[in-house]
Amino acid sequence: MAFVTEENLTALAEKRWATAHSPRDAELMSALVRHLHAFAREVRLTEEEWLAAVEWLTATGRMCDDKRQEFILASDVLGLSTLVVQLNHRFAPESTPATVLGPFHIDGSPPAPYGHDMAEGVEGTPLYVTGRVLGLDGTPLPDVVLDVWQADTDGAYEAQLPAVDEARLRAKYRTRPDGTYCVRTIAPLGYAIPMDGPVGALIGRTSISHYRPAHIHFLIDHPGYARLITHLFRSGSPYLDTDVVFGTKDQLVVDFAERPAGPAPDGGRCETPYLHAEFDFVLQGGRTS
Amino acid sequence: MAFVTEENLTALAEKRWATAHSPRDAELMSALVRHLHAFAREVRLTEEEWLAAVEWLTATGRMCDDKRQEFILASDVLGLSTLVVQLNHRFAPESTPATVLGPFHIDGSPPAPYGHDMAEGVEGTPLYVTGRVLGLDGTPLPDVVLDVWQADTDGAYEAQLPAVDEARLRAKYRTRPDGTYCVRTIAPLGYAIPMDGPVGALIGRTSISHYRPAHIHFLIDHPGYARLITHLFRSGSPYLDTDVVFGTKDQLVVDFAERPAGPAPDGGRCETPYLHAEFDFVLQGGRTS
Repeated sequence: MAFVTEENLTALAEKRWATAHSPRDAELMSALVRHLHAFAREVRLTEEEWLAAVEWLTATGRMCDDKRQEFILASDVLGLSTLVVQLNHRFAPESTPATVLGPFHIDGSPPAPYGHDMAEGVEGTPLYVTGRVLGLDGTPLPDVVLDVWQADTDGAYEAQLPAVDEARLRAKYRTRPDGTYCVRTIAPLGYAIPMDGPVGALIGRTSISHYRPAHIHFLIDHPGYARLITHLFRSGSPYLDTDVVFGTKDQLVVDFAERPAGPAPDGGRCETPYLHAEFDFVLQGGRTS
Repeated sequence: MAFVTEENLTALAEKRWATAHSPRDAELMSALVRHLHAFAREVRLTEEEWLAAVEWLTATGRMCDDKRQEFILASDVLGLSTLVVQLNHRFAPESTPATVLGPFHIDGSPPAPYGHDMAEGVEGTPLYVTGRVLGLDGTPLPDVVLDVWQADTDGAYEAQLPAVDEARLRAKYRTRPDGTYCVRTIAPLGYAIPMDGPVGALIGRTSISHYRPAHIHFLIDHPGYARLITHLFRSGSPYLDTDVVFGTKDQLVVDFAERPAGPAPDGGRCETPYLHAEFDFVLQGGRTS
C-alpha cells in the first residue's frame, strides 16, 4: 500500500478533494490544493512560517464583525479582489470598465432628483458630476439608476459612522429622457485603509503605500445591461498609480475642472467656486457575470 | 501611466509585495500573490465563490479559541501540514520519518519509569510498546526522553477534556543504558476529526473519510539529533490508507501482537491478555529543520 511521501502527497490530496459531490467544488478544491502545495514547495515553507500564517489567519478572522471585513481587505491588498472583478467582467473595450465594490456600499440609498446635493451639510469643495449613460452603440439610456456613494474629506464612509442615521454622501440618481444625469456632491480626497489589524501589520512590513486615491463609487444595474460597479478617480490626485487595492484604470480617471462661482451645471447657480467632472458611462448589453 | 489591467495585475501585485523589508518576507509574499492569482485565473473564480471563501475564512477564524484551532485543521485536511513536515524533515531513508504534531500535545508531561502505565484508570486493551532508540549507525542511545501521548478509546485527548486535572494518557519515558524503552498504555482506536465547524462542512460536501487511523504520538528531542515528531500506527486498523490528515507512512505502521495473560514485556506480569508492539526509533544526527 502506498502511504504518504513528499513526492505523492499533492497528487493524493488533489485526488481526495476531487471527490466533492459537485463538479465545480471538485474543480475548485483540487486546484486550491495544487496551488497551495506549489506555493509551500516553491518557498520551502518552514514550520515557524506555517504557524505564523495560521496565527495571522486566526487574528484576521477575529477582527471581522458586522462593520469590518478584514479578509476582504486582505483580498483587496493582495490584488485578488480586483482580479476577480476583471475575470468576471470582461467588457468590450468601448464600455466603461468595472472596478472593486469595496466594503462600504449601503443598500437602499434614497432617490435623488437631477442635481441634488448628496453632501448636504458635509464640508468640502462643491463638485458636480455630469454626463450621460449610453449603450455600446452610443444610444442614450433614459431612466437608468446611478447608485452613488463616497467618503467625506476625512476618508469616512457613512458605513463607518455609527452615529449617522440618515443617508450621508450617498444617493440614487436617475437619467433624464435624454440619458443625462447630474450628481452634486463634494470633492473626495484620498484616504488610508484601516491599518490597526493584521492586514495593516503585514503592510507595515513592506514599503507599500496604504492609501487609495480620491474616488467616487457608482453602481449601475439596468435591465438588459451588464451590471456595472465602478469608480471615478480624480485626475492628478495622489496615490493614483499606487492605489493600495489596485482599483485605478485609465478610463476611469477624469478631470475635475475648476469653475468660478456662478452658473452651475444643473442649470442653477453655485455661490462658491466649484469643480466639474464630466463622464459618460457606457453599458454593455446582456449579462457578463 | 499604466494602470491595472487583467494582464498586468499579477505582476504589479507581485512587485509591490516584493518591497517587504526582509528578503524572506518579499519572497514569501510575492510567491503567495503569484500562486493565489494563478489559482483564481485557472478556475476563473466567480464573485459568489470569492464571497463564499471570505465567509468560510471568517467562520473558521471565529471557530478558533484556546482549545480549538480550526485553521490548523484546515491545513491538516488539505495536506498542507504534512507537506510542511516533509519539507522541513528530509531525514535519511534509514531514520524514522516524521509526521504531523497535531493540536493535542501538552507540554510538561510527567516523567515515567520503564513500563509505567500511562493509561492508569482509563479503560481499554493493555498495550506495551517496547524497543530501542538508535543513532543512524545503529548505536543504542541511553537517556533519551520519549514524550508520548494518545487519545482514549472515545477518541478524546486530555487537551479536549477540561475536567481532567492530572496527566491522562501522556508521559515522558526515558531509555535505559542499553537504549531500550517500555511504554504501557491502552490500544488506541481510530477517531473522527471535529465535524461541527467550517472544515467539517467542507468535508461534508465530498466523499472524504473524516477519520484518523489508530495511532500513538511520540516526540523525541535529544541533544545532537534532529527533533523527531512522529506517530506509530496500528497495522491493519481501519482508515490507514484514508487518514484524513495524510499522516500515515509505511515505516510507522507496526503490528500490535496479541499475547495471553502472563509474563509482560516490562519483566512483570499482565493479568489479562494484552497487545505488544515493538519499534526501534532511529534518530538522524544534527539539525535538519
